[in-house]
Order: sequence, then structure tokens, then C-alpha cells
Amino acid sequence: MEETRDQKRYERGLAKLSEVDGKWGQQVIEALRDIAPDMARYIIEFSFGDIYCRPGLDLKSREIATVAALTALGNAAPQLKVHIHAALNVGCTRTEVVETIMHMAVFAGFPAALNGLYAAKDVFKERDSDRDSGK
Amino acid sequence: MEETRDQKRYERGLAKLSEVDGKWGQQVIEALRDIAPDMARYIIEFSFGDIYCRPGLDLKSREIATVAALTALGNAAPQLKVHIHAALNVGCTRTEVVETIMHMAVFAGFPAALNGLYAAKDVFKERDSDRDSGK
Amino acid sequence: MEETRDQKRYERGLAKLSEVDGKWGQQVIEALRDIAPDMARYIIEFSFGDIYCRPGLDLKSREIATVAALTALGNAAPQLKVHIHAALNVGCTRTEVVETIMHMAVFAGFPAALNGLYAAKDVFKERDSDRDSGK
Amino acid sequence: MEETRDQKRYERGLAKLSEVDGKWGQQVIEALRDIAPDMARYIIEFSFGDIYCRPGLDLKSREIATVAALTALGNAAPQLKVHIHAALNVGCTRTEVVETIMHMAVFAGFPAALNGLYAAKDVFKERDSDRDSGK
Amino acid sequence: MEETRDQKRYERGLAKLSEVDGKWGQQVIEALRDIAPDMARYIIEFSFGDIYCRPGLDLKSREIATVAALTALGNAAPQLKVHIHAALNVGCTRTEVVETIMHMAVFAGFPAALNGLYAAKDVFKERDSDRDSGK
Amino acid sequence: MEETRDQKRYERGLAKLSEVDGKWGQQVIEALRDIAPDMARYIIEFSFGDIYCRPGLDLKSREIATVAALTALGNAAPQLKVHIHAALNVGCTRTEVVETIMHMAVFAGFPAALNGLYAAKDVFKERDSDRDSGK
Repeated sequence: MEETRDQKRYERGLAKLSEVDGKWGQQVIEALRDIAPDMARYIIEFSFGDIYCRPGLDLKSREIATVAALTALGNAAPQLKVHIHAALNVGCTRTEVVETIMHMAVFAGFPAALNGLYAAKDVFKERDSDRDSGK
Repeated sequence: MEETRDQKRYERGLAKLSEVDGKWGQQVIEALRDIAPDMARYIIEFSFGDIYCRPGLDLKSREIATVAALTALGNAAPQLKVHIHAALNVGCTRTEVVETIMHMAVFAGFPAALNGLYAAKDVFKERDSDRDSGK
Repeated sequence: MEETRDQKRYERGLAKLSEVDGKWGQQVIEALRDIAPDMARYIIEFSFGDIYCRPGLDLKSREIATVAALTALGNAAPQLKVHIHAALNVGCTRTEVVETIMHMAVFAGFPAALNGLYAAKDVFKERDSDRDSGK
Repeated sequence: MEETRDQKRYERGLAKLSEVDGKWGQQVIEALRDIAPDMARYIIEFSFGDIYCRPGLDLKSREIATVAALTALGNAAPQLKVHIHAALNVGCTRTEVVETIMHMAVFAGFPAALNGLYAAKDVFKERDSDRDSGK
Repeated sequence: MEETRDQKRYERGLAKLSEVDGKWGQQVIEALRDIAPDMARYIIEFSFGDIYCRPGLDLKSREIATVAALTALGNAAPQLKVHIHAALNVGCTRTEVVETIMHMAVFAGFPAALNGLYAAKDVFKERDSDRDSGK
Repeated sequence: MEETRDQKRYERGLAKLSEVDGKWGQQVIEALRDIAPDMARYIIEFSFGDIYCRPGLDLKSREIATVAALTALGNAAPQLKVHIHAALNVGCTRTEVVETIMHMAVFAGFPAALNGLYAAKDVFKERDSDRDSGK
């Protein structure tokens, strides 16, 4: 009876965050704990519980859209890395990530695309290293 | 013998531009004719002949990436409309376009997403009107 | 019993939207009806029900922050106008609005500040005209 | 004795504004009269009296830098047009203006460059029309 | 007799810079000494002597506007930190700073707001550490 | 006979890249090798082979435009440094570079200009250090 729609929204969001962002999402939530815990809640409830759970666009496409936008904006490097991880987590290939970023050269210029590629390079290296160390 | 790789690149780009942007791409090329005809050539050769023809990311994903980025940047309204048309031309549903734009509320804020939705509304109306008039 | 926290959130957001944005907020909600009605719901629930209802920063300061940010970004003219209205609705003087926008010349350059001032000029004129016609 | 350095700065700025922006600069000053007259004063004193009067970079280069930046930012269309006029006023050829804008395709993407070219097209037409009508 | 209005403007700006930015403003001035000393002078004269000294908007509101704009733009991390310090220097509470930054999630997206919160976290830590060490 | 226009374009671009960007351009090409080698090819063919080789705007002006745009955008620090080097490589004086960046205070605000000046400071120091060590 107390299981309100709002509570379900939080739980649905937390599950989606975990599915999409993995441990990197968890790090964001923890980084906010002592400065703005409600911000963590909004990310879970609104970004993941509302938006990411919507039907009509699959998760792979959502992450391609996210990587494209963050590459083009060029002013949110940590979030771009989290979402390159996310894109790979939900089934994009490395090639699809690289192509999405290169595609941005046309729409946001080469510097934005280059910095996106450097971010991808770091993420790929991090994942290889995690895998090699059995994480 | 004179059929150089470069000539093929132009032709390949022109075919791809036509497939993706339809008559809206043609309008861009014509608008550039008297001010910067080489810019039209670069759009055909580089944007479409090189980038859009690359394997590894399907056309639907390329247009989702493009609509996402132009919505997030928020400073290129005419190009956003051309690429909402393009997304629909290459097989995205209207729902996928709307969801891609709404997704941007998370990454670029509500004003960017709202202006993207207004652009989509105009494009959908234009296409309905074209269809009704048998164009 | 069915009065969930979520339902209260919608109602709280709708009241806050009405207080802050007045008829201009209503126009946004209506413009979204046939293209993305859920977007209207998120604006009400998240932007106004969650964020605008938070304690710790008064409404006048929230609108000064909003006008400053939209002036600086320079890519969301319709929303800037809505929030110049909103700033005046929640108690800012016209002078405070103008000073907030002029202040942006330092942080985002003169073109951004100029376009913000032109938006303010339009809004002030619209409000004078509404008042004169007894609206 | 009352001829302070500050007064000279204003006069120096006004002369420079007139040299660079011509009648379009005058229109900006007038548009600000009833909303923010001090903003007009700062444009004259700081932008033109201080920055534009500095030695070490000639006026042509200053306008090439300005046209490039406003094209790349893509969020200040009226000011871009004023500075395309300005570039031509201080001795840039139309070709140099067009090349500066096209150059931005590399650094800010094709949409930004396209919108810059459309602005140039409008400005060139306006100047041709002024000349034909003997203005 | 030589005490021109311009000299007063410099002194007024220097006092305001010191009041608002404290030692962080001084660091900016020093960083510019060997590369562009006139830039330091313009910051003092124009940004602080002209704009920050204007009546009609109190200093707290000016810093809320500044923190909001720099958070939204997301491309000037060092200046955002200086102005989070400044907001606290002129009387904003830490809560007001955090709320101003969270408010930007609505208008510029979550990545911009997150990076603003991380900046605030760093600044708060720095101030706690300065206080603990008796600076 | 096999010396196609396309092959010439690559070679022309490589020579121009080397003339403009020197060793810093070479570093970009190498950084892309294992993640997106075709991106390196597009930089050589399109950015340098097509755009930088165009007549109608001299190389000094192209680099002034580039430094201005990257300073104003403020989201591509590594590329700004490469092009401050490039500006000096093609004949701009340090004063011209500094003035171009300061000029951006008017059009993109002081934070963008400050970060541009810090980049220039780093580049000048790096070049002095290279010269002193006989590189």
C-alpha cells in the first residue's frame, strides 16, 4: 500500500543506472553523497527512472545519442567517459563508439571529435586493463 | 583511366546526400552556389562521400547521433530540421526522433530539448502537408 | 490512500509552474501536447515539482540564475523570454533583470549580453502592452 | 583640466566604432538607448576605446578573429552580420570573409560554417542593394 | 588635478576585486603579469570598476548569476572555482551555492551541474583546509 | 597515371600540416594511429589538403581565425595550444597571438580570454625551453 509509484520510480531508476553505467554510475552517486545527495536521487529518479526507462528508443541508440551530444558539446569530459563505458555496456561495439565520435567532426568540428577519440582511447585502455587484471 | 578515386568520392557522396537528406540536401547545395560553391563540394565529398559512407555505424544511428548533437548544441536550427528529415528518410520512426530529442533534456537541459521538439513538430507538419498535397 | 508522493509532486509542480511562469508556462505545456506530452509532465514534475520547490535558494535568486545562464548560453531565445517574465513574476525589478543580463558581458561577452537585452526589451514592451490593454 | 583620460577614451572609442562598424554600430547604440544606455557606453569605452584601439594587431586581423569566433559560437547571428560588415569596412575582401567562415567548418563543424555563409550572403546582398540605391 | 575619473575607476575596481575575489582575484592578476598585464587592468577597470560597482543588483545576486552562467557554459573551470569562492566571500551560504549549481541541471543538463558540484566540493574542501590551518 | 587527384590531395595536405603544425601536428596523427587512423587521414586530406590549401586567405589570417575560434569556444584546450604554436610557425608574432586572444574578451567573455592567455603562456614557455635546449 505504501509502495507508491514514486518508490517504484526510484527502484526502477537504480536498476537502470546499474545496467547502463555499471560501477561508473555508482562512483557518480558516491561522489555526490556529501555535497548534494538529492542530485544523486534526481539522476536515479529522473534521468534513469524516467528518461532511460522510456520505450520507443533502445538503449544502444540512447547511448549513441549521449556519446554524440557530449562529444559535440566538448565541455563534460568525465561524463563523456562514463557514457562511452555505458555505450559498450549496453551492446555497442568499439567500432560503433569510434564511428559515432568521428561522425561529430562534421557537425561540431575536428577538435571536438579528436577530444572524443582521446576519451574513447582512455576508456578502451581502462577496460582492457580491468579485464587483464580479472576485475 | 581518368575515373580517379576522387571522382568516385564525389559521386558516392552525391548519392549518399540524396539518400539521406533528399530535397533538403539539394536546397543546401543550391543555397551555396553563388556564395561558396566549394563548400557544397566539401559537404558532398567529405561529409557524405567520406564520413556518411563509412561502414561500422548504420545510417539510422548516424542520424540519431546527428539529431542528438544538433539538439544539444542548440545553435543550428536549420540543420537540425534537415537532419530530422534525414532521420525519417533513413528509417527512424517519429517516436525515435522525439525520444532522441527528449533524451537531450538530461544532457543539455530542457531549453535545448524543447527547441528540438518544436523543430520536430515543424518537420512532421511539413511532411504531413507534403504528403497531403501529393508531393 | 492513492494520494501518492508522486501525485503530490505533480500538483506541487503545477502550482509552482503557475506561480513562476504564469501564462507563458501554460503556453509551453500546450505546445508540447501533440508532440511530447510526457515532456510537459517532466517539466512540471522534475523542473518545478522537484527543483523549483527546493528550499535553500529563494525564487528571485533562482530566476536571476536562470536569466544569467540562458543569456550566457545564447542558444535558447524563447526560454530566455519566458524566464525574464518569470523573474519579474517572482519579484525581481526590471533593473535587476537588466543588470543580471549586463553582468553577463563580463562572463560570456557582449554579443550574448546584447541579445539578452533585446529579449528583455521585447518582454518589457509585451508586459506594458498587456497592462495597457487591461490583460 | 576636466579633459580627463576617461573622456578621451570615450571619444576615441566612438571614432573607432564609427570607423569599424559604420551605421550598424550606430544602430546598436540606439537600440540600447531606452533599455541599457550604459551598455552602449561600455561598448564604446571598453570594446572600442580600449580593445579595438590597441596596437599589435591590425583592424583587418581583429575582424577576421571576430567573424571566426562568432561563426564558431553560432549563437549571435545579429552580431555576426554587423562584424561581416565591419570586416569589409576595414579592408577585408569578400573572399577573405568567405574563406574565414569556411575555415570554421574544420574547427566548429559544417552547420556553424553554413550559417555563417548564409549571414555573409545576406550582408553582401544588403551592401549591393545599398550601393545600387546610392546609399 | 591629475586625479582623473579613470584613476578612480582603477582604484574602485581594485577595491571591489579584493572584496569579491579575495586572494583568488590577486592570483589572476599575478598570472597575467608577464603575458598580458593590460588584461589584468581591464579586469580591474571594466569587470570590477564598471560592472561589479553598478547599483541595482546586489553582490550576492551578481555572484549567483556568475556561478550559474559559468556552470552552464561548462568551459571555464578555474573561473568557476574563483567565483564559488567569491559567492561565499560576499555572503552566499554553501547551500545557496549548491542550489544555484543544481538548478542548472534543468537549464544546461546534468553533466554541467555535476561538474559544477565537483568544483564546489573542491572549493569547500580548500576553504575548510585553509581555516583549519589558520590561514 | 595512377597519380590521382586524391593522392596529390593527401601529399599536399601532409606538406601543409607539417608547415603549419610542425611536430605538434605529427603528435596528433600518431595519437590517432591505434584508435582511428582514418581520422588522421581526414585531417590531412580535408583540413589541410582542402581547406588550409585554399587561396584567398593567407596562413597567418587562418591561424588568427583558428586561435580566436578555439579561444571563444573554450572547450578544446589541446587544440588551442597546437594552433598557438601554428600561428607562431606561420609568422604571427607573440604579440599578435596575445592580442587575438585578448580581443575575445569582448566577444566570448573574460573567462574564455583568460584561459586562452594561460594556454599562450604555456606555449611560449615550451618554445623558449625547446630553444634553450637546442631542440
